[in-house]
Amino acid sequence: MELKHDTIERIIREALAQMSAQGIAGAGVSVEAPASSMSVEALASGKTTERDPFLVSIGVSNRHIHLSRTDMDALFGPGSQLTRKKAMKQPGQFAAEETVTLKGRKGSLTKVRVLGPLRKETQIEVSVADGFTLGITPPLRMSGHLDDTPGVEIIGPQGSVQRDRGVIVALRHIHMPPETAALLGLRNGEEVDVEVGGERGGVLRKVVVRAAEASAYEMHIDVEEANALCLKNDDLVRIRKI
Amino acid sequence: MELKHDTIERIIREALAQMSAQGIAGAGVSVEAPASSMSVEALASGKTTERDPFLVSIGVSNRHIHLSRTDMDALFGPGSQLTRKKAMKQPGQFAAEETVTLKGRKGSLTKVRVLGPLRKETQIEVSVADGFTLGITPPLRMSGHLDDTPGVEIIGPQGSVQRDRGVIVALRHIHMPPETAALLGLRNGEEVDVEVGGERGGVLRKVVVRAAEASAYEMHIDVEEANALCLKNDDLVRIRKI
Repeated sequence: MELKHDTIERIIREALAQMSAQGIAGAGVSVEAPASSMSVEALASGKTTERDPFLVSIGVSNRHIHLSRTDMDALFGPGSQLTRKKAMKQPGQFAAEETVTLKGRKGSLTKVRVLGPLRKETQIEVSVADGFTLGITPPLRMSGHLDDTPGVEIIGPQGSVQRDRGVIVALRHIHMPPETAALLGLRNGEEVDVEVGGERGGVLRKVVVRAAEASAYEMHIDVEEANALCLKNDDLVRIRKI
Repeated sequence: MELKHDTIERIIREALAQMSAQGIAGAGVSVEAPASSMSVEALASGKTTERDPFLVSIGVSNRHIHLSRTDMDALFGPGSQLTRKKAMKQPGQFAAEETVTLKGRKGSLTKVRVLGPLRKETQIEVSVADGFTLGITPPLRMSGHLDDTPGVEIIGPQGSVQRDRGVIVALRHIHMPPETAALLGLRNGEEVDVEVGGERGGVLRKVVVRAAEASAYEMHIDVEEANALCLKNDDLVRIRKI
């Protein structure tokens, strides 16, 4: 038994129109913006006339490292401080002038940016391709979840550190303040789909919502995800509840 | 006016069930395999009990170059021949032992694999990130569409060539023989959506169908697309007609 796609689409549109006419309400996806190809085209062309609260801007994360006080001391000298180079969108976070080299059994990555401020534990965020370069297979993880992750040698201007864990590929996620989460009907830790327009558009599934105080509303993806979808910083994508 | 996603999903399921019961037929999406989260999970876990014809295997393309006879002569010596290293899935295509260096105004890429056989015009296929490395912005293109593409310097063991065009980022596409296209109800050049399961799963839109004689049924993506979706060679994804 098979159905033509346009038949299915027509049925869905009619059902949505009926429900809309009947005034069925609830928190969730706007009837004006079903996940249709039209909404994708609107995203691609930038022809969104008003800011839909489900539209979120992209922040692309290149490989970087968060350092502990102990590792900062070893790499940059006892008591050394990070030098602020550029503020990140997330309040209080910044790219530092400092960089390190990562060295794995297979290869090295140079000029890896340190992000501040210092953290309780050193964490290294790389892409899948960076893992191949280093000769390790870091798992997809949310920030801070470092159990059973591979390590790497970190080389700074004043010394080096052999970490036995801490390397991850960051799971794509969306930062938002609690009031935005409430507006969208989303909970911290919930997974959503995200619709991407453009030449390499599509839908990203299993995108984790990170609702916390002092957050900027922003979706973080890594460089490979950005390039694979032709996304760049500040591009808009649309959250779809699942 | 807003609708809960699960309400929409319930309506769609009921409509599909009704149409199925009424025996509405047509070429297209199988009722047994709507684009639900269940099918994604089945893909992710490998628990597909029988081979759905809409399932296609992935082939990941790393950066590579196709050479013309003229450029082969200049790079590897007059009358030189490519040495077959490994057959590709597409009949007659092979990876050669030969490699070249690509040099742009910003940087170089070494050990870029030559694919055989020779072609009428030299074509260089790189990733978006490779474009940054070289200092060029190659457009997303189907193979052979080289108008208004940037060039690059190609360096071989016997000489070098400055190409003034030919560098592209390959548009993802699906090769298939005409009989498979007929079975799926697809035409050459048509665009489809592709459903990807797994940790970084989602839907890829605007995937071009390339139906031609002497083709193997295979979807080609580049390394960044593969890593962004956690796909590797021979993984299965599902075509959805649009």
